[in-house]
Amino acid sequence: MLDTPSLTLVPGFRAAAVHARVKASSPPEKLDVAVVASDTPAIAAGVFTTNRVKAAPVTYDQDILARHAAGIRAVVINSGNANAVTGAQGLADARATAETAAAALGVDANSVLVMSTGVIGQMLPMDRLLPGVTAAVNALDGGNDAGHRVARAIMTTDTFPKEAAVRVTVAGRKVTIAGVAKGAGMIAPHMATLLSVIATDVAIRPAALRAALEDAADRSFNCVTVDGDMSTNDTLLALANGQAENPVIDGPDSPGYAEFLDGLRQVSAALARMIARDGEGATKFVTIRVMGAPSWQTARQVGLAVGNSSLVKTALHGEDANWGRVLCAVGYSGADVDAERLALWFDQVQLVRDGAPTDYQEADAHATLTKPEVLIRIDLGQGDAEAEVWTCDLSYDYVRINADYRT
Amino acid sequence: MLDTPSLTLVPGFRAAAVHARVKASSPPEKLDVAVVASDTPAIAAGVFTTNRVKAAPVTYDQDILARHAAGIRAVVINSGNANAVTGAQGLADARATAETAAAALGVDANSVLVMSTGVIGQMLPMDRLLPGVTAAVNALDGGNDAGHRVARAIMTTDTFPKEAAVRVTVAGRKVTIAGVAKGAGMIAPHMATLLSVIATDVAIRPAALRAALEDAADRSFNCVTVDGDMSTNDTLLALANGQAENPVIDGPDSPGYAEFLDGLRQVSAALARMIARDGEGATKFVTIRVMGAPSWQTARQVGLAVGNSSLVKTALHGEDANWGRVLCAVGYSGADVDAERLALWFDQVQLVRDGAPTDYQEADAHATLTKPEVLIRIDLGQGDAEAEVWTCDLSYDYVRINADYRT
Repeated sequence: MLDTPSLTLVPGFRAAAVHARVKASSPPEKLDVAVVASDTPAIAAGVFTTNRVKAAPVTYDQDILARHAAGIRAVVINSGNANAVTGAQGLADARATAETAAAALGVDANSVLVMSTGVIGQMLPMDRLLPGVTAAVNALDGGNDAGHRVARAIMTTDTFPKEAAVRVTVAGRKVTIAGVAKGAGMIAPHMATLLSVIATDVAIRPAALRAALEDAADRSFNCVTVDGDMSTNDTLLALANGQAENPVIDGPDSPGYAEFLDGLRQVSAALARMIARDGEGATKFVTIRVMGAPSWQTARQVGLAVGNSSLVKTALHGEDANWGRVLCAVGYSGADVDAERLALWFDQVQLVRDGAPTDYQEADAHATLTKPEVLIRIDLGQGDAEAEVWTCDLSYDYVRINADYRT
Repeated sequence: MLDTPSLTLVPGFRAAAVHARVKASSPPEKLDVAVVASDTPAIAAGVFTTNRVKAAPVTYDQDILARHAAGIRAVVINSGNANAVTGAQGLADARATAETAAAALGVDANSVLVMSTGVIGQMLPMDRLLPGVTAAVNALDGGNDAGHRVARAIMTTDTFPKEAAVRVTVAGRKVTIAGVAKGAGMIAPHMATLLSVIATDVAIRPAALRAALEDAADRSFNCVTVDGDMSTNDTLLALANGQAENPVIDGPDSPGYAEFLDGLRQVSAALARMIARDGEGATKFVTIRVMGAPSWQTARQVGLAVGNSSLVKTALHGEDANWGRVLCAVGYSGADVDAERLALWFDQVQLVRDGAPTDYQEADAHATLTKPEVLIRIDLGQGDAEAEVWTCDLSYDYVRINADYRT
């Protein structure tokens, strides 16, 4: 992983972000419109929310990617308004946003993707948004700071920007992969109020990029849960401009695919962990490692049930080693677990063996929860597969943040 | 519904509750061991948690009901300790509890059922519990106050006792149905940290009682959600002693079955609504009515997704008419909804029509949430079926209560 990650580390990409007052009450320093542009046409792939209520930009991007995945030039991202549940007007607004960016860039309108995050059910303030889009295009820059500004612009209730980058060798060529993400609320399996853009200079075909992105998402963003809510806007986009000049990756069997996938997973997982760390109101970063599972899928299913449990998360907030709640969630996860084979550790302290409590010391168990990072290990005793899920505690501040988000 | 409900309104039932200090720190006035007894052998049926991690009393009762459902004499209930994840010792303790009650009653040990609620993963304090059981049996009484004491004894974080009773006419005979319940935390579909005992004097066969109880549970306790957590201990028991002397109900086609089922549903639904009203930290009682569904099951599925959403529940707590979160939850409910046919009302204010916002006034929408009872109506536009789900808001106090439950 690179120490000072930025989207603009990837050759051929430029970025910019401006304050357009998308949310009327936002302070002047809040960047809220960002553009990420590739100097040459890029291959693009997306992973989107599975919510049946999809925001306009999701529908819009899915349509563009179905027809123009091999020639994408830019992504426009706004925070402050999700453009969700906005009907036909919302879709028209998404298109107008793309067209405005395309005009400023001098490229085809169908080569621009859009992303939105923020409140649901309000129309985009196009009179403020479109001038912001043009201003951002005019400010495009290849310096590191431009990438950092994008990471800040897409934040809503996030408390810190999320960037990750890595360099890998693909068939003898140096390839850079860099990404930004935002998370915080509505974070649940199968993509969340998550927006993420990953840029890379790898040379790859659309189908291969899509396969790699879905694989990476499954083991990163889909392993994070903050509150179990799945948003209408979740979008992960990858753009690959081919400037690394590696032999083009045709598919999973091509030379270099494994190396590229490994790098993509690293960047995705780093961003996903940042999202859990920055869960709304979070005071603790929690890793749930499920071992001894018959499959990776089962391990993740159990981990997500534990990570979604409000009772587990409030206990962690209170630093109360109430491990019974963990086993309870394992029990209702839907996995075919055998209660008498379960083992459980908080950090290095074993609390349960063969489904019954050990003679652990309460003080030792409590001590494992007083740190800002908590590790819960669960052994199902049924196989060799394992998975990690990342989450956070449930605090007073989660309630405060979400009880009055719109004002 | 009867105005002053009590289990002891049912002829042939007596009850008692005592303070046995099951939880070492509980104050002297906290009743924590209760006994409900039938003077003659009663038909019994149960509905239990589907959690794979089942508390010892659940396993114990399932075994007893499989063999002795036609001759039950008593139920012993303790609060303060769930006897869950307690291994072989927990099961032995459940049996010892039943045996102690049976000895004091002078009946067969296999005619006594047990229920526990409280913290998970600690052994029952048998040295305090068993004397309490004996004392409760010796205090059995047929007065109304005895039933009220049972309702108080089974409370954990509940803030008020939950009792309901009704009189119905079954094949010309007056039948009384009365129940108590406790809820508060770990309340989710498919039975929750819910304990409930329903007593009746109807004459009925075991299979018919079981069918009626499952039907009633599906439309009452399984329509309540507080925090989405499903407990290890959920148990609903019904005891029918036949003293009403109606023609014995053999099955759903027998005369009087429909009338009995109606009464059972009324009592179950009344108790279920009380559980939602008393959700941990609740400041609002929320009814989610899903209409226009292709089936009752789909309607309930959608309602539970909305009722389980932490984002919906925190918005309700903040009296923020953030209806986008409601539609978002409808979208990820798993039901095959058509986003463009959705309609949504808060109380009488229509916020969404054909999947897009109406021109409602924000002040009107806000006003619907300032009351202690909130009604959310969702029309899927797909059929004629409907269902109601009951829940509450998610407050600071939920976090406070659950961050430090064990101390």
